[in-house]
Amino acid sequence: MMKKSMLASSLALVVFSQAIADDGALRDKANQIFKPIPDSIETKISDNTITPEKIELGRHLFFEPRLSKSGFLSCNSCHNVGMGGEDNQPKSIGHNWQHGGRNAPTVFNAVYNVAQFWDGRAEDLKAQAKGPVQASVEMNNTPEAVEVTLRSMPEYVAMFDKAFPAKAAEGTEAKKAEDSVTFDNMARAIEAFEATLITPNSAFDKFLKGDDTAMTAQQKKGLTLFMDKGCITCHSGVNLGGQAYFPFGLVAKPDANILPQEDKGRFEVTKTETDDYVFRAAPLRNIALGAPYFHSGQVWDLREAVSVMANSQLGTELTDSEIDDVVAFLESLTGEQPKIAHPILPRETATTPKPESK
Amino acid sequence: MMKKSMLASSLALVVFSQAIADDGALRDKANQIFKPIPDSIETKISDNTITPEKIELGRHLFFEPRLSKSGFLSCNSCHNVGMGGEDNQPKSIGHNWQHGGRNAPTVFNAVYNVAQFWDGRAEDLKAQAKGPVQASVEMNNTPEAVEVTLRSMPEYVAMFDKAFPAKAAEGTEAKKAEDSVTFDNMARAIEAFEATLITPNSAFDKFLKGDDTAMTAQQKKGLTLFMDKGCITCHSGVNLGGQAYFPFGLVAKPDANILPQEDKGRFEVTKTETDDYVFRAAPLRNIALGAPYFHSGQVWDLREAVSVMANSQLGTELTDSEIDDVVAFLESLTGEQPKIAHPILPRETATTPKPESK
Repeated sequence: MMKKSMLASSLALVVFSQAIADDGALRDKANQIFKPIPDSIETKISDNTITPEKIELGRHLFFEPRLSKSGFLSCNSCHNVGMGGEDNQPKSIGHNWQHGGRNAPTVFNAVYNVAQFWDGRAEDLKAQAKGPVQASVEMNNTPEAVEVTLRSMPEYVAMFDKAFPAKAAEGTEAKKAEDSVTFDNMARAIEAFEATLITPNSAFDKFLKGDDTAMTAQQKKGLTLFMDKGCITCHSGVNLGGQAYFPFGLVAKPDANILPQEDKGRFEVTKTETDDYVFRAAPLRNIALGAPYFHSGQVWDLREAVSVMANSQLGTELTDSEIDDVVAFLESLTGEQPKIAHPILPRETATTPKPESK
Repeated sequence: MMKKSMLASSLALVVFSQAIADDGALRDKANQIFKPIPDSIETKISDNTITPEKIELGRHLFFEPRLSKSGFLSCNSCHNVGMGGEDNQPKSIGHNWQHGGRNAPTVFNAVYNVAQFWDGRAEDLKAQAKGPVQASVEMNNTPEAVEVTLRSMPEYVAMFDKAFPAKAAEGTEAKKAEDSVTFDNMARAIEAFEATLITPNSAFDKFLKGDDTAMTAQQKKGLTLFMDKGCITCHSGVNLGGQAYFPFGLVAKPDANILPQEDKGRFEVTKTETDDYVFRAAPLRNIALGAPYFHSGQVWDLREAVSVMANSQLGTELTDSEIDDVVAFLESLTGEQPKIAHPILPRETATTPKPESK
């Protein structure tokens, strides 16, 4: 009896030691492919130095419906900080209830993507921020009207002056600008705020940093599959994606509702035939919060999304239990969601343009 | 020289003493007519005991777009906590970009109104909260669909269970409900959160409580005019309005764009002829943040709104400087705006109804 129990103990110790060794090997391999979310926010994005004043202004602008022609839609309408940084819609609702062309990507951790939008047409967040403000199916406004609106409110002027005390410091040759309230500075401030919208300390991040207990056994199995099956060809780095462009339907075209023929992806940007149906690999941070999936927003089930990817990109049919494992791993990518105080927005004045919603 | 200076000093002292006496008299009179915003929130609204758990749930529900059929519109869409508790729109934008029939009233301090909506058709905030969720031009949803949505998310179920541990405690004879997630409880939680949306410590409140320096001399002149000209017939109490119903156009009908013929106000509720064009007197707290004005939302200038009121309700033509003084007084009604943390909303599940935005 005693012998048996000692044997059991020894066996348990062997299994335990093996698990530690396995975890170590898995971590080493994973750390060559992925990176945890950094402990602190970026201090500079290209020529945009991130300051507390810009972040504070950007927080106001992010929630500011008066950036839209209707006075009704803000960045947060489609990149809801309470819903994983997006809107849970197949296609976002915009001006006059029009629907956008593609599913709204999350703003969370977007600062770590190589470029913005599904087709990477904006080189950074400040370039991105200018897009929806002007898109007719989104906020339907103009840079000129935005500037008139922001200049009409003394509280905004004061915040811009504080955030942009000398335009020359912002990478241009110009002397101190007469007017800090510009469409470009609006975008810089929004970029600064968005740089704070990161989701650290996911189970996966904790595991990468050395905590064996952060991920479940199934999540570790899923991570192993994710690396061994080839998902990492496109989904690597800090955001497990968002770094490069790949054809959707590399091995087999998915259904036309998932990959509609009329949306040729990056081809629209580069006009290069090899970019037909090429998209930026989706970043997978918080992907469990990110339904519906793909640029077309037609798949609500993460299991189905994993299966579609395996078939179309890898030419692989995953078993049900493999899909379960990969989905369990993807669940480990959900990090701490940012806690944002809703701003108290500046008060309009007699010269603030009126909302035009009809 | 010395004598002259002594005389000046004495005169200054007399003027000073007189000002103190005047302020005291003004305060005494004002305190008979108005009340400051209470120092703490309500603890019970009819049978709804306000608890931290209900407030916390209500904060989530207030920002929850999935209460709407489209999954896009929340209470905060039209009662924006960053914009004085309303949307700065003449008429709110709702489902499918329809426009509501009347200007959205502010949610701030609404707990102190005798009833809700411009026509008082909801007896309290919890009755009010059920309206826009179901109105076809607003959130266009049904109580049943809302319950299915909320029950589909375990995080909501847990919050409801915590906020409503025993339905019997909520003023009904029923035993502990099987299911705390009901449309009625949704409304109770929203009411609890909205009871926290108060704006204390305005200059006017400070003056009422004894601080002579809180209001400017012009604001005090405006307060005097506001009382002497008869504005207080309708605009008294803690909210300077919101307490009773009065015909709009009592003395003279304003322009048809301000008082459209087709909107008969409280008549629609009571079907009583004497209620033709009768509305709940607008509460004037934070009115300087509340443009555009009146139920029709066609007047953007507070000076014009004051002038319209004087003409139509009092049969008085105020001078320009009197209007300036009254507007200065109304500015003193802007209180501390509530600071609200944007909630991190529960994650949807496979059984959460999909947004229907088309």
